[in-house]
Amino acid sequence: MFSNTVEASNLLKFAHKLADGAGSAIQPYFRRRLSVSNKAGENLFDPVTEADKAAEATMRALISAEYPQHGVNGEEFPDKPADGPYTWVLDPIDGTRAFIMGLPVWGTLIGLTQNGAPVVGMMDQPYTRERFWAVEGGEAYFRDAYGEGVMRTRPCATLSEAVLAATAPDMFKGEDIGRFNALSEKTRMTRFGGDCYLYCMLAMGGLDLIAESSLKSFDIAPLVPIIRAAGGVVTTWDGGDPASGGSIIAAGDPHLHAEALKVLAG
Amino acid sequence: MFSNTVEASNLLKFAHKLADGAGSAIQPYFRRRLSVSNKAGENLFDPVTEADKAAEATMRALISAEYPQHGVNGEEFPDKPADGPYTWVLDPIDGTRAFIMGLPVWGTLIGLTQNGAPVVGMMDQPYTRERFWAVEGGEAYFRDAYGEGVMRTRPCATLSEAVLAATAPDMFKGEDIGRFNALSEKTRMTRFGGDCYLYCMLAMGGLDLIAESSLKSFDIAPLVPIIRAAGGVVTTWDGGDPASGGSIIAAGDPHLHAEALKVLAG
Repeated sequence: MFSNTVEASNLLKFAHKLADGAGSAIQPYFRRRLSVSNKAGENLFDPVTEADKAAEATMRALISAEYPQHGVNGEEFPDKPADGPYTWVLDPIDGTRAFIMGLPVWGTLIGLTQNGAPVVGMMDQPYTRERFWAVEGGEAYFRDAYGEGVMRTRPCATLSEAVLAATAPDMFKGEDIGRFNALSEKTRMTRFGGDCYLYCMLAMGGLDLIAESSLKSFDIAPLVPIIRAAGGVVTTWDGGDPASGGSIIAAGDPHLHAEALKVLAG
Repeated sequence: MFSNTVEASNLLKFAHKLADGAGSAIQPYFRRRLSVSNKAGENLFDPVTEADKAAEATMRALISAEYPQHGVNGEEFPDKPADGPYTWVLDPIDGTRAFIMGLPVWGTLIGLTQNGAPVVGMMDQPYTRERFWAVEGGEAYFRDAYGEGVMRTRPCATLSEAVLAATAPDMFKGEDIGRFNALSEKTRMTRFGGDCYLYCMLAMGGLDLIAESSLKSFDIAPLVPIIRAAGGVVTTWDGGDPASGGSIIAAGDPHLHAEALKVLAG
């Protein structure tokens, strides 16, 4: 928890600055890549890796300039240890399959942890100009094509009424496959595809449940403050701390989370 | 084939007018629905059905006023028989699962058939302000956040290099399940989720192959002119006319289409 609200406000403002920088770095590669790729020939140019690296380098440069004592954990470069409590957790392009196809359901994830606990979270979609964010202890906010506002999850206490989502069926391995299928069979509807976008739609009240597997810390830690501030619950499948990744379950309604945990426990 | 280019131009202009009307009818229900739904209580208000009906009614009214002799086949209301060669094929919201979750990967499909053959096709995404369209015999066009232009599929002749997509694994029934899985195993990557959006991204060169099942005529007929004008091939899984729906295979590269047909034939 932040002891100082001025500090929290400054760190949130800085997260917005990181998102702006990442978006500017990524956009030249989204969809434009096609002509570049054809000119360069096969396999000489991987646009999603180039965009990932450009965005993470941009964010790391901003952090080094403003908060040199902060740590950085990102997908593309080695971890930078923190001198103090704060570490930024960055995933420049979450949803690489969507990105390479040209679908707008990917996002830039920016999280801040304090002694390992997620305290600021942000998801930015620069193509659609959508942004979702929260500071621990506050409300969850969105900005979309219709305006800005506070996000709240929707009530849905029973699995039979729940809308479930996951990024892809092939993300589940070993016994997780059967556990996910058991959960899916008890819900009203399951949809695949969406990555970080799904957690923001859960925060906005568009769906009830997300069950995923094989997540990295930077895939989920930046989303934890958003889900919690909107009224949702997010843990690992055995009810533990989600910030390190692994198999993750998020629910808009705490009662639904409890029901889902029972099924996932087998 | 249009015998008269002035007529083709007028019908394309009119398709844009239909898309504008449908978008205005749908947008009040997208994401806004959440508060409405909570106020109205459970099951009293189905926003996607309301939006579907409002958009189709808007398009039918425009067609009756401008082209009273044209037929209309839509998802929400009974077919209106044509007095002459032309019938409009309308799917106001293709991608209802995405719509209800708040994801922007749904679209309004507007097609025109001439004696049963698709001659004009359009996909409109009013939230992101994206539009994709083509007239048979012409080029395929897009308008997105970066501008307007001509779309071309990308070359990819071999399954092992192909990016495959489908809307959902549960759309395949019976022996189609094994056939789709056999195709998926031979490709480089498979992604689920996207509906009509996938076909437009194929036309834009973002992916190589789409295999789907259980499609209705209005799910695919409006996309056929777009895929073909961009250089792609679209048929049923046994190589037949795709305009009536069923099991559909679309490829950006004609060689890849031939390879995929061999696998789907078993």
